Amino acid sequence: MHIPSVGWSPDTGALRILDQRFLPERELVRDLVALSETIDAIRTLAVRGAPAIGVAAAIGLAVSLAADSGGQGSTARALLPEYASRLVDARPTAVNLAWAVHRLLRLAADTDDERLLEALRVEAEVIRQEDVQMCAAMGWHGLPLVPDGARILTHCNAGALATAGIGTALAPIYAAHAAGRLVTVYANETRPLRQGARLTAWELSRAGIHVTVLPDGAAASLLAQRQVDLVIVGADRITANGDVANKVGTYGVALAARAHAVPFYVAAPWSTIDPATATGADIVIEHRSSDELGELPPGVPAWNPAFDVTPHKLVTGYLTDRGLVTPPFA
Amino acid sequence: MHIPSVGWSPDTGALRILDQRFLPERELVRDLVALSETIDAIRTLAVRGAPAIGVAAAIGLAVSLAADSGGQGSTARALLPEYASRLVDARPTAVNLAWAVHRLLRLAADTDDERLLEALRVEAEVIRQEDVQMCAAMGWHGLPLVPDGARILTHCNAGALATAGIGTALAPIYAAHAAGRLVTVYANETRPLRQGARLTAWELSRAGIHVTVLPDGAAASLLAQRQVDLVIVGADRITANGDVANKVGTYGVALAARAHAVPFYVAAPWSTIDPATATGADIVIEHRSSDELGELPPGVPAWNPAFDVTPHKLVTGYLTDRGLVTPPFA
Repeated sequence: MHIPSVGWSPDTGALRILDQRFLPERELVRDLVALSETIDAIRTLAVRGAPAIGVAAAIGLAVSLAADSGGQGSTARALLPEYASRLVDARPTAVNLAWAVHRLLRLAADTDDERLLEALRVEAEVIRQEDVQMCAAMGWHGLPLVPDGARILTHCNAGALATAGIGTALAPIYAAHAAGRLVTVYANETRPLRQGARLTAWELSRAGIHVTVLPDGAAASLLAQRQVDLVIVGADRITANGDVANKVGTYGVALAARAHAVPFYVAAPWSTIDPATATGADIVIEHRSSDELGELPPGVPAWNPAFDVTPHKLVTGYLTDRGLVTPPFA
Repeated sequence: MHIPSVGWSPDTGALRILDQRFLPERELVRDLVALSETIDAIRTLAVRGAPAIGVAAAIGLAVSLAADSGGQGSTARALLPEYASRLVDARPTAVNLAWAVHRLLRLAADTDDERLLEALRVEAEVIRQEDVQMCAAMGWHGLPLVPDGARILTHCNAGALATAGIGTALAPIYAAHAAGRLVTVYANETRPLRQGARLTAWELSRAGIHVTVLPDGAAASLLAQRQVDLVIVGADRITANGDVANKVGTYGVALAARAHAVPFYVAAPWSTIDPATATGADIVIEHRSSDELGELPPGVPAWNPAFDVTPHKLVTGYLTDRGLVTPPFA
């Protein structure tokens, strides 16, 4: 199974993404060159998921600098601070975005003008390949969590579409499936943008894995009926004490899992851990437009935070590419 | 504020409903005569909310019998058992539906053929007027729960649209607004059919009450941020021990309210209490079509229960037209 969520155009060397806004109806692949296109793709969730955003930012930065500098390293260096800053502002919560951009900035500081553009391209590709490896490692470390016959509840999409590889929260599921185990996945719809119904259901069913979609509000009921053996969700940021920022709705699932003594795992690459942020209370939560909620009566606003914070005490375990880890993360 | 959710056509004496499937885009009023039309309206949620369903069933039964019997009481009596049984089967969970139908059946047993059709019409109108009074009583009894400045979270629609009057869960809010108090309502979107976004937001904003819609998954986060003073939801059935069947998603809100020590009230007419059912575990939950979830990838099913069960231990108080009551209900 290969899902080309984020990578390079083999023809032009542009940033290539699978535009997730059109799934599951249509598999639209787009090649982006201008920085504004990359920023727009990140902001509109054409590319989404913290790891995929990091890879897209790295490739998009390298590609746009090469195009706009006419191949001149000195010009690229002059553009770099502004380009980096605009990219980082595209989505404030995902730590991987800033992490990838700062990695290119550090590299640039150690590279002379002549080799700058090529060095940025190589580093962006290294970031992409590391992401593929990271996903594989998460699948390997998470495999014992998913025995034959396991029924797993997940929220949003932390799968292949959210990474350059086989995903984070879904990596152990793909690994278990590849190992011949029967796995059943329940995917929360994940309003307002329906990433669970559109993306998680799409990529799992495409891989031949049983998946059933449910309204977000039905998750507590599913847990109450003992139809779930474990919950696995992704994370956009994990703070030093283990609090987890993830797609809005995660916290409610964690509360319901705890109420019914179902294990609740957070799966994220080590790079998602942000030891500089002490607790979830310190995380700035992005609020998005009312338009995402669909039709509302005239004049009625929506409260539409992109993320919520799940306190560490509700988390059974943290699955990373380094294995299961335990807070505090210093 | 008058919302003609369910009543009589002043022209023809038919069952008149506001077809809620088209709100908030369009206020479509429909007059129904055939029993199949009433059943269809109940099944497709054109008319919905336990009290409104009860009123619609009573009027629809009286109207269809009058039409199909050609005004002959003996013919109407012969049709009655089958008509009653078909109506009761339209939606299994709402206790008011069976309650209203059985009330007409009991009346019929005590009435001679000559007066039967008129007696059924009068009884249906009495049921409607009692519903209006019931709502007013709930507003009055619930008024102390809603002080000036109160911020209230609700789920689904237990408002004017769900009754023949000012609603059940929303009755105290309308009463507080009428008393000059400033009230802010947060309405969960309520997937899959969006009754919160389409109906609750529509009727409250129409009445000049501040209302904000949020995705169901955001409710736990809103509660965590101390932006809610109390939760009020309706109920489709309350069992002898106080367990509550209500729109799916209610249970998750109750868990989150408890986690943040926010009072959680269930508001429902006394007739919603079903002392013959011991606990929530005995309630048969209606499962609805995957189609309600909207577009899903090909071959992916949905798990779509209409209701969930909130255990009595999570309920702060039960507001009824008889005041605040306490289980067990014997």
